[in-house]
Amino acid sequence: MSIETVPVRLGDRTYDILIGAGLIARAGEEIVRRLPGVRAAIVTDGHVAAAHLDPLLASLEGAGVGSTAITLPPGEKTKSFEALQTVVDGVLAARLERGDAVIALGGGVIGDLAGFASGIVRRGMRFVQMPTSLLAQVDSSVGGKTGINSTHGKNLVGVFHQPQLVLADTGALDTLSDREFRAGYAEVAKYGLIDRPDFFAWLEDNWREIFEGGPARTRAIAESCRAKAEVVARDEFETGDRALLNLGHTFGHALEGATGYDSGRLVHGEGVAIGMALAHRFSSRLNLCSMDDALRVERHLAAVGLPTRMADIPGDLPDADRLLAYIAQDKKVSRGALTFILTRGVGQAFIARDVPSSEVLAFLKENHPR
Amino acid sequence: MSIETVPVRLGDRTYDILIGAGLIARAGEEIVRRLPGVRAAIVTDGHVAAAHLDPLLASLEGAGVGSTAITLPPGEKTKSFEALQTVVDGVLAARLERGDAVIALGGGVIGDLAGFASGIVRRGMRFVQMPTSLLAQVDSSVGGKTGINSTHGKNLVGVFHQPQLVLADTGALDTLSDREFRAGYAEVAKYGLIDRPDFFAWLEDNWREIFEGGPARTRAIAESCRAKAEVVARDEFETGDRALLNLGHTFGHALEGATGYDSGRLVHGEGVAIGMALAHRFSSRLNLCSMDDALRVERHLAAVGLPTRMADIPGDLPDADRLLAYIAQDKKVSRGALTFILTRGVGQAFIARDVPSSEVLAFLKENHPR
Ligand SMILES: NC(=O)c1ccc[n+]([C@@H]2O[C@H](COP(=O)([O-])OP(=O)(O)OC[C@H]3O[C@@H](n4cnc5c(N)ncnc54)[C@H](O)[C@@H]3O)[C@@H](O)[C@H]2O)c1
Ligand SMILES: NC(=O)c1ccc[n+]([C@@H]2O[C@H](COP(=O)([O-])OP(=O)(O)OC[C@H]3O[C@@H](n4cnc5c(N)ncnc54)[C@H](O)[C@@H]3O)[C@@H](O)[C@H]2O)c1
Ligand SMILES: [Zn+2]
Ligand SMILES: [Zn+2]
Repeated sequence: MSIETVPVRLGDRTYDILIGAGLIARAGEEIVRRLPGVRAAIVTDGHVAAAHLDPLLASLEGAGVGSTAITLPPGEKTKSFEALQTVVDGVLAARLERGDAVIALGGGVIGDLAGFASGIVRRGMRFVQMPTSLLAQVDSSVGGKTGINSTHGKNLVGVFHQPQLVLADTGALDTLSDREFRAGYAEVAKYGLIDRPDFFAWLEDNWREIFEGGPARTRAIAESCRAKAEVVARDEFETGDRALLNLGHTFGHALEGATGYDSGRLVHGEGVAIGMALAHRFSSRLNLCSMDDALRVERHLAAVGLPTRMADIPGDLPDADRLLAYIAQDKKVSRGALTFILTRGVGQAFIARDVPSSEVLAFLKENHPR
Repeated sequence: MSIETVPVRLGDRTYDILIGAGLIARAGEEIVRRLPGVRAAIVTDGHVAAAHLDPLLASLEGAGVGSTAITLPPGEKTKSFEALQTVVDGVLAARLERGDAVIALGGGVIGDLAGFASGIVRRGMRFVQMPTSLLAQVDSSVGGKTGINSTHGKNLVGVFHQPQLVLADTGALDTLSDREFRAGYAEVAKYGLIDRPDFFAWLEDNWREIFEGGPARTRAIAESCRAKAEVVARDEFETGDRALLNLGHTFGHALEGATGYDSGRLVHGEGVAIGMALAHRFSSRLNLCSMDDALRVERHLAAVGLPTRMADIPGDLPDADRLLAYIAQDKKVSRGALTFILTRGVGQAFIARDVPSSEVLAFLKENHPR
């Protein structure tokens, strides 16, 4: 079994991400080695529980880690105040103490929710991420951002709370739907587009192997975690550079909001794929990036089966003015000015702080399917 | 106007506590000087709003600080998930950004709730404490502990989130009921009992002046804040020494739980007063502290009109076994062993980590009114 280890260096909050096949079955021993004597509450969703909860329970029991499971409905709606309260109550009902752990077994929804709960029960418990979606393995489980949604927007409520350990079982991805795998792949491509042009070129050549599994998959996930860990180590609390990770997300979140977070129409990674294509197009409209690079990005995303245009979203979208309002409500708004991640080409993204909303509006109108 | 300033030294989270009469009327200028350009959401309760909201709004407006007010029902029940969601939604509806501030205008309930909300909206906004009860001025507004209650116990859910500024208007205490003033005084006495025997002796001589107002009141509050700030600076995240501040609180919380947090029967500070008297009695039972010291403590607390015995609580209490169960559920339980703050005498409190529950039970039985 070949496991890659990626450290996330954050002073006394430093922790390891282990990546490889079979880590769910090995979770008990990996956890008990680092957190001797710990007890745990596993937070998961119905889909993931069906495929992976029993092996995890068996592994924990084998290592002598007492645990209870809290299973929630799958889907973005679970990132709510109500579900948060359910998890908090469940953890307290299990009489866990500060030194005990919450284990998130699932995708980004479960990771964000369980991480938030672990950050507020007794003002902060231990936390272990066991991401089971590609998106969670390469993105949401790394970096300590946790949270839930509000009627006012996505991820508006939460805390920074770092895990003690991340166990990314690449084999768990075999039960993930193709659509969700592709959605997670958008975030993998994102790291290439931000500042790793060679990685992006490697992805263009090797994406089929990554989808099939095996060493290319582990390598792509590890490289993604390294990329994210680097940015997070530079800017743990998102006061600067970390905003680069939002490449594609300003447009993406607006589209998620505009489709009412209806995963039938759009899942997060699909919104990000369209958002990244739009960010490159918008950059080229502003004469920052060549149209060739924008088209190259679209071509690769489309090749793996990701949407790249607003017209790819089934159903009607609100008009450009309404979309702009969604963007303005997004949390990456600073004192009224629009902050965007723009780019000078593949692997050359940068933070642009004063993008005029008139330019954004004109661009949205040009690219609107109506 | 004589304002005392007490710094809370926490590295880059260092902030000032200003203490004195007239600070509500001066809040706008004090806030704008430190947080230029800030907008604010004021969180308060019905009692406090009636007496102090208009002057605060006028002061903020005069200083050019835009604000909205969120007014909640008074009382411990407001430290709930529901009220938390109300505050979070209100702050988001006001479209405040990360750099804007939540202002807590009220007692410890409002401070704990608003502080928690400010710690989780956008993963952490700015926060200003304007404590209006004596308890809040000397205790809850200092040190960054925020939170709400759960059906499983008090303060079990929350975050550490430091304010940028604390404005303690000693004049605001004139509208506080005598009973609430006395309850807050229990925490003032606590600092003397922990490690300031001279302060305790000064309180024995000067408590009447403190109750009347004027310089002795400001001095007592400032000395209390200095005492708390010192402990907090040593142990911001309560992994050690900070537990000393729980003198009287293990018994106190159990009694609050046992009376269903019914403020008609017992308010927090009254629970603490009884708890401190019990902690000294228990210490003397364990031959740690003289009975003389235990009686001296009871005498002073009773002199100011505070309860000191379980029998002073109106209505029936659960039996000793049930009380012990409340203690065991309290969050200061580490791996099953009971942690208590015990004492060798006035001003000589210490953390005792392995107190046998059999001793506690026997003591509770002896002191139980039934
Ligand atoms: N915290 C962060 O830094 C961060 C970063 C990016 C995204 N996010 C958040 O992550 C969320 C999206 O994550 P996601 O795409 O993983 O969503 P998700 O958790 O909803 O998972 C997607 C779907 O796949 C299912 N699933 C997950 N793993 C599976 C497996 N191994 N087998 C079968 N089914 C499986 C889930 O049940 C769900 O139906 C969003 O809420 C987003 O805001 C957070
Ligand atoms: N965060 C901490 O470190 C910390 C420390 C100690 C206590 N606490 C918490 O503080 C809470 C108790 O605080 P409290 O005693 O201030 O309770 P509180 O906020 O309920 O205030 C007590 C009563 O006094 C009223 N009141 C407050 N100021 C007034 C004024 N100036 N004029 C008229 N009425 C006024 C309130 O409306 C309320 O009815 C508890 O929830 C406790 O857990 C927190
Ligand atoms: Zn994303
Ligand atoms: Zn107290």
